[in-house]
Amino acid sequence: MKSNLDLATENDNFPYLEDDPEHYTRLVSSYYTFHLQDSNATVGYILPWVVEKMPWSSAWTIDHKQKRITPRPRYYSLDEQNTVIAETLQEARARGIFKVLKGWRDELYPIYGSAAQISLERAGAALFGIVTFGVHMTVYVKTTEGMKIWVPRRARNKQTYGGMLDNSVAGGISTGEKPLDSLVREAAEEASLPEDLVRKDAKACGLVTYFYIQDERAGGETDLLQPECQYVYDLEVEEGVVLKPGDNEVENFSLWSVAEAQKALAEGQFKPNCAAVLLDFFVRHGILTAENERDYIEIIARLHRKLPFPMA
Amino acid sequence: MKSNLDLATENDNFPYLEDDPEHYTRLVSSYYTFHLQDSNATVGYILPWVVEKMPWSSAWTIDHKQKRITPRPRYYSLDEQNTVIAETLQEARARGIFKVLKGWRDELYPIYGSAAQISLERAGAALFGIVTFGVHMTVYVKTTEGMKIWVPRRARNKQTYGGMLDNSVAGGISTGEKPLDSLVREAAEEASLPEDLVRKDAKACGLVTYFYIQDERAGGETDLLQPECQYVYDLEVEEGVVLKPGDNEVENFSLWSVAEAQKALAEGQFKPNCAAVLLDFFVRHGILTAENERDYIEIIARLHRKLPFPMA
Repeated sequence: MKSNLDLATENDNFPYLEDDPEHYTRLVSSYYTFHLQDSNATVGYILPWVVEKMPWSSAWTIDHKQKRITPRPRYYSLDEQNTVIAETLQEARARGIFKVLKGWRDELYPIYGSAAQISLERAGAALFGIVTFGVHMTVYVKTTEGMKIWVPRRARNKQTYGGMLDNSVAGGISTGEKPLDSLVREAAEEASLPEDLVRKDAKACGLVTYFYIQDERAGGETDLLQPECQYVYDLEVEEGVVLKPGDNEVENFSLWSVAEAQKALAEGQFKPNCAAVLLDFFVRHGILTAENERDYIEIIARLHRKLPFPMA
Repeated sequence: MKSNLDLATENDNFPYLEDDPEHYTRLVSSYYTFHLQDSNATVGYILPWVVEKMPWSSAWTIDHKQKRITPRPRYYSLDEQNTVIAETLQEARARGIFKVLKGWRDELYPIYGSAAQISLERAGAALFGIVTFGVHMTVYVKTTEGMKIWVPRRARNKQTYGGMLDNSVAGGISTGEKPLDSLVREAAEEASLPEDLVRKDAKACGLVTYFYIQDERAGGETDLLQPECQYVYDLEVEEGVVLKPGDNEVENFSLWSVAEAQKALAEGQFKPNCAAVLLDFFVRHGILTAENERDYIEIIARLHRKLPFPMA
C-alpha cells in the first residue's frame, strides 16, 4: 500500500538539489540543455542518448562541450525555429527512432522562454524535456452519504497508462489555447459534460506543478523528463448529473466515496499525476489535514514544485 | 497601486537562486548558519551584525571561518540546548541589544531539524532566522450581493504592522500546539468566534509558504530573515455571524466585498503575509484565474516557496 507521500513523490520523482547536491549536480550536468535563439534560458533538458539518436540537421547547433542545443540563427528566423523542430521530429518519426513518437498526435505544445511563438509536437515534448501544461478537473457531488467523486478509468488500449484511473476531466493545453477553453473541450470530449455547465460552474483552484521522470507506463522510452504544470479545477454537480465517456479514451466512469478513492490511490491504481491532483483536491477540501496526515508539509511542497524552466 | 505580483513578491522577497545565482550565493554565504547539536541541517540564517552583537556565552561554538553557530555539546545535553538559547536571548534582552526583543512575548516557537524538542522565544525567531509556523483563516459570507470577507484592522499601537489590515483570524503556532488548536484559540481571542463553530466548520485548505526579509513595519531591526509556513483555513459563516475584537490586538472588523478587499490590497493596506494568504484564497476560490491574472503562475509559485530549512 502506498502512503500519500509515496504518491506525491512517485509523481514528483526528479531529485531535489538540497537532498543530495552531489547526485543532483551530477545528474543535471549529464543533460544537454535546450535553448531557443533569442534567450539564454534553458527551456528543456535532453538526455544524452536522445541527443545521440536524434537526426539533427545542419539547422541545429549541437555544442557537445557546453552540452547546449539551439536552432541555428543563420538558417532560420525566430519564428522559423518551429520548422527546424518540426522537421527534426518528423524525420525521427519517419525513421522510427523513438517509441514515444509512435504516439504522434498532430497537436502542438507551446515552449515558453522566447520572444517568438515556438511549439513542438506533443509526442516529442519529453524528448526535449520541456514544461507541458494541462487542465485537470475533479467533478464531485455532495450526497447525504458524504462527498462522492467521479472517477474515470482510462481505456485499456490507450498507449499511455492504459487501464489506470484518472481525474474526472484531464487533458493537455495546446498552443494558443486558454486553460478554460481547453477544459471545456476536454470535458465535452471525455466526459460528455455540456459547455454551458462547465463555463458556469467549474471553479479554477490553482496549479499543481511537479517534475516527473517517466517509467514504462508512459508507453515509450523510460527516463524521459516531463516537468508539468496543471491548472486545477473543481466542479460540484447535482446528484442527477452523470459523467459518461464521450470518446474512446475513457472506459467508464464510477462515482466513488472519498474512502473508495483513497483505497484506489493507496493501491496505486491512479495515473501518477492524477493521484497528485486528487491529493491537492483533498488538501483544499480539508480531507487531508495537518492533524491526520503526518507528511502534510512535504506532500504540499511536492504538489507545488518550482520548475527550473521559464513558465510564461 | 500594487499588482498582485507586487504583493506576492513583497512578501516572498528573499531572492531566488535562479534569478541571479551570483547575487544569491554572495548573499547566502554572508550569513552564519545556525545548527542544532545532533544534526548537520541548517535550521536558520543569522545576519553577521546579529552574530557580532549577540552576547554568546561559552556554551556556544561560534565558528567564524565556517560561519557556523551551534550550542556546544560538552556544556549541555540535547534538550538543554533550550537553556543555552533562552539564556542568550534573555541576556540580550536585559542589555537592550535588539529592538525586536522589546516585543518579548513569553511564547516559545519550535525549531525543527533535531531529534530533541528545541524552542526559542517568539520575539527572537527572526534573529536566528528560523522557520516559524502560523494559522491564517479567511472568514467569508455568501450574500445576495456576492461573497463578502471579514477583514480586521490591527490596533494602531501594535508594535508590528500597527494599523494595517489582517486576515480574519491569524496567529503563531507555539511549541507543542497543533494547528487546529492554535486556530481555535486565536479565533476566540481575536475575533470572538466560538470554539464549536470553528471546530465544526473551519476547513483546512493547505499551506502558504514564503521567505520574508523584514522592513521597518515589522517593528524592529530591518533585514532580519523570516521564513514562514502558514496553515490556511476557510470558514464560511451565515450572514448573522458577526466578528468582533476579543482582545486589544484588533481595532475593528469590516465585512467587505471582494472588490473592496482587492482595492485595499492594491493600496498596500494589508500586512504583507496577510495579502499573500488573501491571494491564495482568491486563487482557490476561482476569483484570480489564468484568464484574468497574467502573473497567475508566478504568484502561485511565490505562495508556495520551498524553504531551505527542515520543516518537520
